[in-house]
Amino acid sequence: MKLIPNFPTEPGSLLAFGAHPDDIEFGCGGVIARETRAGRPAHFIICSRGEAASNGTSRQRTLEAATDAKVLVATLEWLELDGDARLEIKTAHILKLAAIIRRRRPEIVLAPSCVENQHPDHSRLGRMVRDAARLARYGGIKELRKQKSHGIAHLLFYAVTPDAEPRDISPVLMDVSAPEVVAAWTAAMEAHASQLRTRNYVELQLMRARYLGQRAGVSHAMALFPNDPPVLDSLAALGRGARQF
Amino acid sequence: MKLIPNFPTEPGSLLAFGAHPDDIEFGCGGVIARETRAGRPAHFIICSRGEAASNGTSRQRTLEAATDAKVLVATLEWLELDGDARLEIKTAHILKLAAIIRRRRPEIVLAPSCVENQHPDHSRLGRMVRDAARLARYGGIKELRKQKSHGIAHLLFYAVTPDAEPRDISPVLMDVSAPEVVAAWTAAMEAHASQLRTRNYVELQLMRARYLGQRAGVSHAMALFPNDPPVLDSLAALGRGARQF
Amino acid sequence: MKLIPNFPTEPGSLLAFGAHPDDIEFGCGGVIARETRAGRPAHFIICSRGEAASNGTSRQRTLEAATDAKVLVATLEWLELDGDARLEIKTAHILKLAAIIRRRRPEIVLAPSCVENQHPDHSRLGRMVRDAARLARYGGIKELRKQKSHGIAHLLFYAVTPDAEPRDISPVLMDVSAPEVVAAWTAAMEAHASQLRTRNYVELQLMRARYLGQRAGVSHAMALFPNDPPVLDSLAALGRGARQF
Amino acid sequence: MKLIPNFPTEPGSLLAFGAHPDDIEFGCGGVIARETRAGRPAHFIICSRGEAASNGTSRQRTLEAATDAKVLVATLEWLELDGDARLEIKTAHILKLAAIIRRRRPEIVLAPSCVENQHPDHSRLGRMVRDAARLARYGGIKELRKQKSHGIAHLLFYAVTPDAEPRDISPVLMDVSAPEVVAAWTAAMEAHASQLRTRNYVELQLMRARYLGQRAGVSHAMALFPNDPPVLDSLAALGRGARQF
Amino acid sequence: MKLIPNFPTEPGSLLAFGAHPDDIEFGCGGVIARETRAGRPAHFIICSRGEAASNGTSRQRTLEAATDAKVLVATLEWLELDGDARLEIKTAHILKLAAIIRRRRPEIVLAPSCVENQHPDHSRLGRMVRDAARLARYGGIKELRKQKSHGIAHLLFYAVTPDAEPRDISPVLMDVSAPEVVAAWTAAMEAHASQLRTRNYVELQLMRARYLGQRAGVSHAMALFPNDPPVLDSLAALGRGARQF
Amino acid sequence: MKLIPNFPTEPGSLLAFGAHPDDIEFGCGGVIARETRAGRPAHFIICSRGEAASNGTSRQRTLEAATDAKVLVATLEWLELDGDARLEIKTAHILKLAAIIRRRRPEIVLAPSCVENQHPDHSRLGRMVRDAARLARYGGIKELRKQKSHGIAHLLFYAVTPDAEPRDISPVLMDVSAPEVVAAWTAAMEAHASQLRTRNYVELQLMRARYLGQRAGVSHAMALFPNDPPVLDSLAALGRGARQF
Repeated sequence: MKLIPNFPTEPGSLLAFGAHPDDIEFGCGGVIARETRAGRPAHFIICSRGEAASNGTSRQRTLEAATDAKVLVATLEWLELDGDARLEIKTAHILKLAAIIRRRRPEIVLAPSCVENQHPDHSRLGRMVRDAARLARYGGIKELRKQKSHGIAHLLFYAVTPDAEPRDISPVLMDVSAPEVVAAWTAAMEAHASQLRTRNYVELQLMRARYLGQRAGVSHAMALFPNDPPVLDSLAALGRGARQF
Repeated sequence: MKLIPNFPTEPGSLLAFGAHPDDIEFGCGGVIARETRAGRPAHFIICSRGEAASNGTSRQRTLEAATDAKVLVATLEWLELDGDARLEIKTAHILKLAAIIRRRRPEIVLAPSCVENQHPDHSRLGRMVRDAARLARYGGIKELRKQKSHGIAHLLFYAVTPDAEPRDISPVLMDVSAPEVVAAWTAAMEAHASQLRTRNYVELQLMRARYLGQRAGVSHAMALFPNDPPVLDSLAALGRGARQF
Repeated sequence: MKLIPNFPTEPGSLLAFGAHPDDIEFGCGGVIARETRAGRPAHFIICSRGEAASNGTSRQRTLEAATDAKVLVATLEWLELDGDARLEIKTAHILKLAAIIRRRRPEIVLAPSCVENQHPDHSRLGRMVRDAARLARYGGIKELRKQKSHGIAHLLFYAVTPDAEPRDISPVLMDVSAPEVVAAWTAAMEAHASQLRTRNYVELQLMRARYLGQRAGVSHAMALFPNDPPVLDSLAALGRGARQF
Repeated sequence: MKLIPNFPTEPGSLLAFGAHPDDIEFGCGGVIARETRAGRPAHFIICSRGEAASNGTSRQRTLEAATDAKVLVATLEWLELDGDARLEIKTAHILKLAAIIRRRRPEIVLAPSCVENQHPDHSRLGRMVRDAARLARYGGIKELRKQKSHGIAHLLFYAVTPDAEPRDISPVLMDVSAPEVVAAWTAAMEAHASQLRTRNYVELQLMRARYLGQRAGVSHAMALFPNDPPVLDSLAALGRGARQF
Repeated sequence: MKLIPNFPTEPGSLLAFGAHPDDIEFGCGGVIARETRAGRPAHFIICSRGEAASNGTSRQRTLEAATDAKVLVATLEWLELDGDARLEIKTAHILKLAAIIRRRRPEIVLAPSCVENQHPDHSRLGRMVRDAARLARYGGIKELRKQKSHGIAHLLFYAVTPDAEPRDISPVLMDVSAPEVVAAWTAAMEAHASQLRTRNYVELQLMRARYLGQRAGVSHAMALFPNDPPVLDSLAALGRGARQF
Repeated sequence: MKLIPNFPTEPGSLLAFGAHPDDIEFGCGGVIARETRAGRPAHFIICSRGEAASNGTSRQRTLEAATDAKVLVATLEWLELDGDARLEIKTAHILKLAAIIRRRRPEIVLAPSCVENQHPDHSRLGRMVRDAARLARYGGIKELRKQKSHGIAHLLFYAVTPDAEPRDISPVLMDVSAPEVVAAWTAAMEAHASQLRTRNYVELQLMRARYLGQRAGVSHAMALFPNDPPVLDSLAALGRGARQF
């Protein structure tokens, strides 16, 4: 028995879902940058072109997302559901999301949190991804039969804005302080130039990361919210707690 | 940047606090067994002789605790506070607990949960250990000046009984399924023979571990409740989630 | 810098949504009466004719609502969605609600609470109004382009029945004790004569207001639940706390 | 009936309690600065000399607090209870706190929050101030008979650190963005030079205020947590909600 | 006035809803066995054939459910909604469920809990049954007019898996320890042979019942979660509390 | 197996604890009146003479309590702890309370709730009674050895004021509508004439009971909060749910 937890030598892949072209970057871009730099493959599913936003055309936003994914060393795929600011909870959507999970076979899934008091697309997508991660495991769903069932290791929620942080799940704080991680994340956010005309969202997110970093005792941190309790085989896996004050 | 989180090559020590001679074993004995088998040093502080229990003399219970600590490969130390079923929250106690933390310099501290609807000694000890872990870091407390200040990495709560599981902290589930771990833990609990005359607490705890194990997808698991959010430098540290159903 | 908070000299308008012809009156009628008497314009949107109720025809209930709005000095508008006891959460509905918000440009929006264990139309309307208040601000939604985007100052939830009071939002207690306010509110509720045949809802609501009033130290009070934290520029705005016991 | 709430023309005074010489400044100094600039008298009660801190002598800290109070235009009083990092919940303390409330007769009381997972002195002082605010109203307590009983208008909790923010009370966000307010608050925090040697607490608090400010739509905001629901006589008092995202 | 509460001499019937052929048995089969043995009529509504499961054909599962209902002395009825793993929240479904409630006129309704982090069909059915129990009471819904309105005495939620236990409702623990009850429940679960090939769900549920039984001081117990506070006319009705530790 | 739950033919006794001479009556007097009229013996322990109240001498209040107990057909005993508004949590107090529980051997214990934001004596007494009910069961506490250990059936919390109602325990609503029960309860409250000079607490409590009664579908109801989940052997024991709206 070893003190150091068992880790796969080959990292499983990461699959991140976003309702809009910039949600993943603003909500968990630093974590993605950190993981891809460590060799974990990442793939993004974006579920609208952001066409309801006050600024930016669909075409612009599509290009911005492509640039941003490149910066974060991730591949990118568009999934058309109901359109921006129109997402509804439908079985047909959940089956599409589940089919993607089966196809990509990720170890880790990232999705926006289910907190209702935020942009409605965010919480609806989060809830549908949670359901899809279940359906991806069930054997008898006929639309999904072409691909082998798949059980993910973790569904982790991110919060695009502070209000979207769940109050009923204890967070884990991810250290994203490495300068090259902060730089990549910043560049990824800045790729969404159309969204930065009226408010400085990049500065907001960096400040939020520094604020959480101060709680965590590092320069920058991001909070993720595990949908299910982690199962660990060693206390060493827990790192250290955010006990700075 | 590596995918595998950074772990210390030399494991830090573990310090477990119990209000009664059998609390640590019944509440988190499987975790202790797992960690000591992996080479992590463990030390127990027991804060009463269990003299208020319906069965067992102080002398018997002292011997039982010694046997049990040996089985779990831990060292054992008695701390006299107010006596069994008499514990009160006092600064003098907190300072004593903080002095022990400074002397032992543990990486990880285990304490009973702070949930009030359980044996009153449990929640009071849990709250005082939480305070003591703070005071151990402060530089200006004169009773503590003899030892260098010390910041622990994690305070984790255990629940002696199901009712003591906190509702406002998300648990982590520790896999304690290895047969030698289950065997050691069982032997440690059975060392407390005086407590097993009227009710089969060993079977209760094993059933609880199997029940949690079924949630976790392993044969036996125990829940721990981190006082502070873990700060992690890789998603790999999260293991996999308890998503069996 | 003044102690007295800055208030607009010209009061913004209030827009109240109800799922049934009598929800606004029973849930927050006293607050409406108080505000309109102070010169704030009020407009009601009622989303069904109450045709699923045990008593009263659609025609009767339409007339009752008209009388009641007159008593409360509010204007009244009917919005047909799915019908009484049939409301579903749909993007099309949310867009209609958002269009109304843009057209009326209210400072304050009142809606039924999102607590699920109540009449299903109530929580669904509450959630759709919350989403609509967001969409009313976004610039790129094509159905809404005819009207300029609009950000409201406050979304406040009311609870038609005690069970509908949210447990996760701290209430504010509105003092509605002025005799003319109580009289207008009572008259507005009594306008719904068809609903008062089998149970005395007027007495229930008045008793509830007196019960809350006793907590608040006034004769009658009503609880409202702000969707978002109030941003205040002076402590003077907080009035005094409900500390009577 | 007027739309604008009734406000006293003569502002009632504010009484702030701190467990350590710098708690008030770091936890709610911006609010104090804003209120005193508007003419509200403020008085501080500090319950230890901060002698348990890693840095600073009692003498230094006493001087720092005096400077800081002057910057915030507040008067200052020391109350010796059990000493720094030693505070216990005792009736004798609560009576002393209640006597001060009777003597000062404040409209508003500020105290550290009751959240237990923070410096133990903070939550204990918060709980004792809450009890003291009750006892100050009761007529029959013999130690308090020399002064007339007094009922305060509001008890508001502040959080010295982010972890101390209560999860069961909805916050109000106080706008402290005026440049002269930020400047006075910053100067007040910087007066505690002994505490700033090892960590930049001033930057932490300013970043926290900017972070909350972004939620509130202003440059800097601080959160306060009312112990009791506000009783308001007009919706105008609610300002606007923090709905920026 | 008698100490013993008033109970109907003729037991009202019980109506249990399940999303899949085995949900009722696994989630509350012991309670059903206990009640039918005491003479209470029971009726099951199953809302899919379980065709999305990894094992078992629709035909097999239909037969298994029939066997199981026979063992539990209940009648069985199939209700086709959207199919397994496809359930959506729709007014049309709710009206169908309400029509069944009016037709069966039960005293007690059992439904899966509304906790979202479980099989999505479970929480959606639970929420629709809750709404249907309301609609069954309203007089004016035209699809329901053929049957007299009906108010149930209790809606009780069951949790098919531990994760589905609501955290915001206090449970009642039902003693299902009688050997013939355990035997009937076990046989009912074993009737679902197709589901038991890959995982031993029967053992899981029995272990869960023994685990809860240990909290309750009996050999086997099951938790139910009342949607509404019980109204009691005697403290004797409360039995005794689960205070074993 | 019978549908009707097993009830003792001989009712166990009820033991109610109050911090002040009128707490039991105001907080749960209607329930006491109902139970004693049904033949259940009741005994009151009052832990102060109410000497800190604004009105009434100790002597007057002692007489008032005696009258009131007579009206409720209960016996009365005074327990001197720390005095009114001075109660502290001490092991010595808990042992005294446990000794009373052993001596009286009640089936049911009533105590004020543990909610902290109320008169501090209330929550402290509630917490100490909860601990005492545990200690009364333990065999080895030397101060308690003179009496046989005793396990109660239920600890139920009452809320003297609305603010004292726990938010984390689901209530049970006790029907106290029988005219002779309301009359006895009213008379018991009116016995505390000294407390009724400045505020009409009797009317407050009756209104609260009518308000809860409306939720419960009866004329008057009182809420009790069980410390532990009830263990029931029949669904019939649950009465009917409060589903009036």
